[in-house]
Amino acid sequence: MAQTYDYTIYLRWSDADRNGHINNGKFATFAEDARIEWFSNLPGRADGDMGSSLILARQEIDYHRQVLTEEESDKQMVMRCSALSIGRTSVRIREELWGSGDSSPACTVHCVLVHFDYQAGKSLAWDETQRSWIESYAAAEDT
Amino acid sequence: MAQTYDYTIYLRWSDADRNGHINNGKFATFAEDARIEWFSNLPGRADGDMGSSLILARQEIDYHRQVLTEEESDKQMVMRCSALSIGRTSVRIREELWGSGDSSPACTVHCVLVHFDYQAGKSLAWDETQRSWIESYAAAEDT
Amino acid sequence: MAQTYDYTIYLRWSDADRNGHINNGKFATFAEDARIEWFSNLPGRADGDMGSSLILARQEIDYHRQVLTEEESDKQMVMRCSALSIGRTSVRIREELWGSGDSSPACTVHCVLVHFDYQAGKSLAWDETQRSWIESYAAAEDT
Amino acid sequence: MAQTYDYTIYLRWSDADRNGHINNGKFATFAEDARIEWFSNLPGRADGDMGSSLILARQEIDYHRQVLTEEESDKQMVMRCSALSIGRTSVRIREELWGSGDSSPACTVHCVLVHFDYQAGKSLAWDETQRSWIESYAAAEDT
Repeated sequence: MAQTYDYTIYLRWSDADRNGHINNGKFATFAEDARIEWFSNLPGRADGDMGSSLILARQEIDYHRQVLTEEESDKQMVMRCSALSIGRTSVRIREELWGSGDSSPACTVHCVLVHFDYQAGKSLAWDETQRSWIESYAAAEDT
Repeated sequence: MAQTYDYTIYLRWSDADRNGHINNGKFATFAEDARIEWFSNLPGRADGDMGSSLILARQEIDYHRQVLTEEESDKQMVMRCSALSIGRTSVRIREELWGSGDSSPACTVHCVLVHFDYQAGKSLAWDETQRSWIESYAAAEDT
Repeated sequence: MAQTYDYTIYLRWSDADRNGHINNGKFATFAEDARIEWFSNLPGRADGDMGSSLILARQEIDYHRQVLTEEESDKQMVMRCSALSIGRTSVRIREELWGSGDSSPACTVHCVLVHFDYQAGKSLAWDETQRSWIESYAAAEDT
Repeated sequence: MAQTYDYTIYLRWSDADRNGHINNGKFATFAEDARIEWFSNLPGRADGDMGSSLILARQEIDYHRQVLTEEESDKQMVMRCSALSIGRTSVRIREELWGSGDSSPACTVHCVLVHFDYQAGKSLAWDETQRSWIESYAAAEDT
């Protein structure tokens, strides 16, 4: 059975822009925090800093509804993370932002991450343990 | 002949994150500033504030290379904007971030914008003048 | 006995700048979130949005030590808020940022807030209930 | 005759918060950019990255008026920098943010910067050339 990695996002007052809702760029920040924490648990990581070994190659953000800080319960939301497909040295993930009363995500982020060895200056193949760990978060289907 | 809308981005020291390069979320900010200024010239706009009438439904960001503030000439870059396709009430645009010495963009952003009437609470068809204006920025091809 | 208003700050990965520690400007954001939540409880507020009726006239930020996200327990800190002095239409507050292992604050912020009536366009005297509420958070002494 | 160091600030759409004016924390960002560029010219700097050798110990920000992006000419402002007093290893500076039509600053920032040697782990005395350079920016008086 697939699991998801759920990360709590705490909204800040200044996340909203002059339109009163969360600014589009902040969703990238939320997605970043969730996947960094998620992948900090990747087996065999040399260090806990995702920045040094997982490179964001692409992200797609779908804005399904406006997010108003004061309408989210306790100003909290959840970023729900799944793996969509694994390449030799990369992974495509999905991150969905849910408010407590939502029946569908407020926002969906898809990212392509490349496993990278900065010292060698080239991409790095996942080992078997890593592949299994990532596959344990496989989404049943993409939506 | 198609034209592009070119907008200058002035990098800030704090745009870089702990990895030393521009944080992935800032490219959304750069894209936002460029397209707001671009569409502030849309004929027949009731006001100059894009936020009130063009909704960002989706954006895709491709990170082609790291951007280091100190390597960009005068800490400036250019966001080059084109229109890719026009729907009845929406438009798909491309925004490319170029450094002065670049032979290809450092980053490419694709956005879907919806022309929206907040008072009526529904999307709004482009009129002919607006369609012509948008088409004058049509990209020869997408890359 | 004086009480303090304690507000939890959840650090984000991108709060750190290229020096690896929390950027100086983020402490203003932390202070903003804490005092907005604190003053959302002010008796007799017409609405829950501090932005509309309390104006930040001045803030002083003392940076006592570097803050590294990964060194703070669960990436959380506490902003501890007290009132230092009350004027007719203003208040001077202190906000201290504490990590879980700290014997002194990592950062101290002093703010002057003006109680303002945007519709009348002028500052607004605190009523007695409001003064009592603020005084219940009086600091024993400033440090 | 004293000179000032004038640095152009280019406002971004997302600098404004839900109140419609530039968020209080952004003024710290503007001040940071101006003084980093200013002190990148300090004689005898081992490198051009202020972050590595000048530590911000304290900043005071006075908000004199609201700043609305659309009211500033070409969305530009100027941060005007002066030195107020020099210590053995520190300097107190003033940074004033001016709009093109202003008769007084929109915002004033005072900072205490400490000249620091990260490798030795201690503060570093200014040499004579550096003191002269800083004094060439001495403010006639503080306001």
